[in-house]
Amino acid sequence: MKKEEKPAPKTARRCRNMVIAQSGGPSMVINASLVGAVTAAQKMRREGKVGRIFGARHGVEGILKGDYADLTRLGAGKAAAIALTPSSALGSCRHKPDAADCRAIFEEFRRRDVGYFLYIGGNDSADAARIVAEEAGKAGYPLVAYHIPKTIDNDLRSCDHTPGYGSAARFVASALIGDDLDNRALGGVKIDVIMGRDAGFLAAASALARRRPDDGPHLIYLPETPFSADRFVKDVKAAMKKFGRCVVAVSEGIRGKDGVPIGATLGSGEKDSHGNVQMSGTGALGDHLARILKEKAGVKRVRADTFGYLQRSFPAMQSKTDLAEALGVGERAVAFACMAAEGAAGAPAAGTVGIRRKAGRKYAVELVPLPIREAAKFTRSVPKEFIAKSGCDVTAAFIDYARPLVGDLPATEIL
Amino acid sequence: MKKEEKPAPKTARRCRNMVIAQSGGPSMVINASLVGAVTAAQKMRREGKVGRIFGARHGVEGILKGDYADLTRLGAGKAAAIALTPSSALGSCRHKPDAADCRAIFEEFRRRDVGYFLYIGGNDSADAARIVAEEAGKAGYPLVAYHIPKTIDNDLRSCDHTPGYGSAARFVASALIGDDLDNRALGGVKIDVIMGRDAGFLAAASALARRRPDDGPHLIYLPETPFSADRFVKDVKAAMKKFGRCVVAVSEGIRGKDGVPIGATLGSGEKDSHGNVQMSGTGALGDHLARILKEKAGVKRVRADTFGYLQRSFPAMQSKTDLAEALGVGERAVAFACMAAEGAAGAPAAGTVGIRRKAGRKYAVELVPLPIREAAKFTRSVPKEFIAKSGCDVTAAFIDYARPLVGDLPATEIL
Repeated sequence: MKKEEKPAPKTARRCRNMVIAQSGGPSMVINASLVGAVTAAQKMRREGKVGRIFGARHGVEGILKGDYADLTRLGAGKAAAIALTPSSALGSCRHKPDAADCRAIFEEFRRRDVGYFLYIGGNDSADAARIVAEEAGKAGYPLVAYHIPKTIDNDLRSCDHTPGYGSAARFVASALIGDDLDNRALGGVKIDVIMGRDAGFLAAASALARRRPDDGPHLIYLPETPFSADRFVKDVKAAMKKFGRCVVAVSEGIRGKDGVPIGATLGSGEKDSHGNVQMSGTGALGDHLARILKEKAGVKRVRADTFGYLQRSFPAMQSKTDLAEALGVGERAVAFACMAAEGAAGAPAAGTVGIRRKAGRKYAVELVPLPIREAAKFTRSVPKEFIAKSGCDVTAAFIDYARPLVGDLPATEIL
Repeated sequence: MKKEEKPAPKTARRCRNMVIAQSGGPSMVINASLVGAVTAAQKMRREGKVGRIFGARHGVEGILKGDYADLTRLGAGKAAAIALTPSSALGSCRHKPDAADCRAIFEEFRRRDVGYFLYIGGNDSADAARIVAEEAGKAGYPLVAYHIPKTIDNDLRSCDHTPGYGSAARFVASALIGDDLDNRALGGVKIDVIMGRDAGFLAAASALARRRPDDGPHLIYLPETPFSADRFVKDVKAAMKKFGRCVVAVSEGIRGKDGVPIGATLGSGEKDSHGNVQMSGTGALGDHLARILKEKAGVKRVRADTFGYLQRSFPAMQSKTDLAEALGVGERAVAFACMAAEGAAGAPAAGTVGIRRKAGRKYAVELVPLPIREAAKFTRSVPKEFIAKSGCDVTAAFIDYARPLVGDLPATEIL
């Protein structure tokens, strides 16, 4: 569109352009972060601090291909609708850029006069942004790079909790409310396999479904506690004896004593460029666990569901808190990036937005700039104080932690 | 509670008691039917036509065990909360009563002076109620038996559509909206396996997710059209060429030319007492179809999710129309049963509630009494005029049929 080709308002300083992109697994609120960032960048543009705003399609792959959506004049109505739409509106990728990719990226950035690079994603995406930032330093290309945190797994070390988690947890807790009622009606054992490659936060959120003393999930297994099939059979038998039925929430990432994820030994063995083995998008782990129970626990009716991609993409399921915070981290990332470009103290040139929970009974957070390496590559596990000593449940401390992130859940009644 | 032991108001005629129960797979609105029936029965009790109202737990099994919830004085507040709660509040079963069971049932009914038997469920449950009614006739036990229609599969011949379907279809369409956006972001092929043992109505409802010309699902496979793996591979390749990605909605009940459900050959082979093979609660069919595509279509990224029990149990997902109609069929069943007890013309002593869609552009239905055999045992398939000639899509006529049952769906926006 010709209208969009106009230069940014003239200022004393050169007004460099921004590239923003999304990476890794989508979430229900990653578009809210995109909209938060674009809205903040539009404001900075009016202040003469940012030029045009390019949305690269499918993460760094879009930069390498020169495939962009021009978001400079994204209207408020469309922005609001995008913010409420699940999944990644710009498309995503799982590409880890190497040195050659980075050279191609800087050529592209030079051509477009890009001074700001914002990358929304999880720890792998933060690592990709870190690589781009470091290579830019080596190549002498002036770039401010910010990572905007997103992951339904809630496993970033830089955040008390990560945008995307609250909404996915809301889906999981809602699903367990319904599924527990279904199991009440027909009995037997129901296994629900929940996303979470390395961290069990999402499976742990299933505990929020409980309202009555005999409500499920009755057993919760996380990757943080080594999984033993024998122990599992014993736990289920005990729950069946106590409740006459049993609902099991299990993280897709559960692993044996050897540390190898059980799901990874059953699936296709397919890996992405960050080295992650495919675990979602298959019912293999659930079926494997169901077989164990039928053979060894003597339970006649065993069913297994794998919640799969609905956990990150179901529409109209966002937690209000999660949605607001996702918007907030997008806005703040742009603000921090502009501060860094101006050389302000406290905002690193390669940064991420940290989320800190404030002390006190009332839930509140503050968003802070942190060096990008704080979010990159390494993952955070569910801390010990959130895991029950039994190894098959969570603690009250976890419930207190998770409840404000998830918000209200549907009420139910039984006879 | 002593209060509840009081006899019903005295009238000239003897005021016989009612047993109501739920059977088969739960739904999101089967409790609305229960509440509709109980509320209507309470009204009939005030009019001196019905005595006490017993809810048998877990269908006919509760009658055989003498396990009841006394619903005679179920309060309005609790009733409203139960109506909005998914799954079967009285519990369910899949037990097909034989002649011996019926003799035990009539002994129990005689002891409790039960003159009305209401059974909420699908075609197998209607058949169970039909057996009870016929055996009562043979045994000379005076009984009015009414079936209250429920099934997410939408496969009763006695109804234009069945209560439970609209809400499950709403879940499916919502899930596909999100899942299609997820597939837009990361590409490849996504397979979603949707409930429907014999009829493809629920998988067909995935088509309601489409808003834009390139929205998925791009392929829809129903049990009504013989499934060929070769044809499937060709269809997916063509969709990949056209859209650069592909979302597939497939009914769990798809079957080959031999008529054998493909899922039934992959699962545990477990059968219920009505002879139905287990197909839900396992990811086997989705994984099987994904393997075919990886091996024969050369698609690198193939993921499969099986929606499983969430389709019938997810809370706060009810379609308003479905909820209102579920309540209505419960109310009308009791009204028809009382008419039958009074010997009124048009209401059979063993009946079901039929749902007829009225002619005209504005959606409206009428609820009519029908002989119970109209609902029993046999299933309704998706009619030919709802299936596209390609065999891998639905028609506009189906969309017109299904949209008012499902109601509004979340809006989304793309870049």
